[in-house]
Amino acid sequence: MSGLVTQSRLVTLEGGEGAGKTTVLHALRDALASAGADVVCTREPGGTPLAERIRELLLDPNHEPASPQTELLLMFASRAQHVRETILPALKRGAWVLCDRFTDSSYAYQGGGRGLDPELIATLEREVVGIRPGLTLLLDVGVDEGRQRARGRDLVPDRIERERDEFFERVRAAYLARAAAEPQRIRVLDASRPAVEVAAEAVSALRTWMREAA
Amino acid sequence: MSGLVTQSRLVTLEGGEGAGKTTVLHALRDALASAGADVVCTREPGGTPLAERIRELLLDPNHEPASPQTELLLMFASRAQHVRETILPALKRGAWVLCDRFTDSSYAYQGGGRGLDPELIATLEREVVGIRPGLTLLLDVGVDEGRQRARGRDLVPDRIERERDEFFERVRAAYLARAAAEPQRIRVLDASRPAVEVAAEAVSALRTWMREAA
Repeated sequence: MSGLVTQSRLVTLEGGEGAGKTTVLHALRDALASAGADVVCTREPGGTPLAERIRELLLDPNHEPASPQTELLLMFASRAQHVRETILPALKRGAWVLCDRFTDSSYAYQGGGRGLDPELIATLEREVVGIRPGLTLLLDVGVDEGRQRARGRDLVPDRIERERDEFFERVRAAYLARAAAEPQRIRVLDASRPAVEVAAEAVSALRTWMREAA
Repeated sequence: MSGLVTQSRLVTLEGGEGAGKTTVLHALRDALASAGADVVCTREPGGTPLAERIRELLLDPNHEPASPQTELLLMFASRAQHVRETILPALKRGAWVLCDRFTDSSYAYQGGGRGLDPELIATLEREVVGIRPGLTLLLDVGVDEGRQRARGRDLVPDRIERERDEFFERVRAAYLARAAAEPQRIRVLDASRPAVEVAAEAVSALRTWMREAA
């Protein structure tokens, strides 16, 4: 494949640490299921046995740190596998796919955060991923607040959670820049509000999209 | 980095299964050491703790097969790490680096063998590897003969060794095409001869190169 096909039934969730993606993901899954849709819930990095093993390599602090380029290629290796083994087969049979993180995360973390060239990321997206979501919900929350929430949740921070605040500010700025450039696809939700409110707005955005995509 | 710098002290060995790379590598290492050179012997995929763990993922037959694109990106993830952690630091201190497989292997196996676009491979080489060897020795042997030797050596074939003969014919053809396009850098050695003869020719080619590169 070589090009970028929008898949209307691929819905992705994006956002920084502690933005509350899991709560929203469950609400979206329930909304799709109660509308009678076949739903596959998945996540990145991961989503197949091999891709989950790549995820372990990425998050494991027990070997030398991955260079930014290594991290980028491991993310796209996992994504290439996930798209072919899990996402495309599900879309082909007519299912909706809800994915916790997708290519926008690479633009935000490896592009914005690590400073890698967005052109290289765009080449990988076009040449090895080939699809993009119809709808992306970006859960936006201030870096301080998100990190405080994430710290309350995890006993041992993984490698990415140990990064410094400036890194996460760049990630957030890259996300918001992408949303500004693609306002039709990427909806920004204010995730500083209570989770139940954010989830309700996310479900409402998804229902609107389901009618448009039908 | 963005571009491709030739590193005269980086010498790579390439070739199909059973071409006798290990014997030749040892002979080259001994020749460099006896000339008083600081030598680092390394291999791909691998060469750092993280890159060796990527190698395990690539060769392990106990999860679903990697898609060709996943395989390519894992190879380059491991290479990006290897270049930054092992090869460049060694070159910087003036050492010679002998590497069992390098980027030519991706052109041969993932390009020729798997049919991936050489342009994508060239982009990855330029954008995430950034260096190429001054001298590459290609140990060329017929597919039947090489595979018979490899089978005699390994009790359990790994994933790549299980491929069919046509795959290895395409790998060999891609290697020979690269050698024809870059005759100055890539020397083809007839590896159907006894190992000691091949090693002697390899050492002679290396000594000539050491004089030219000095």
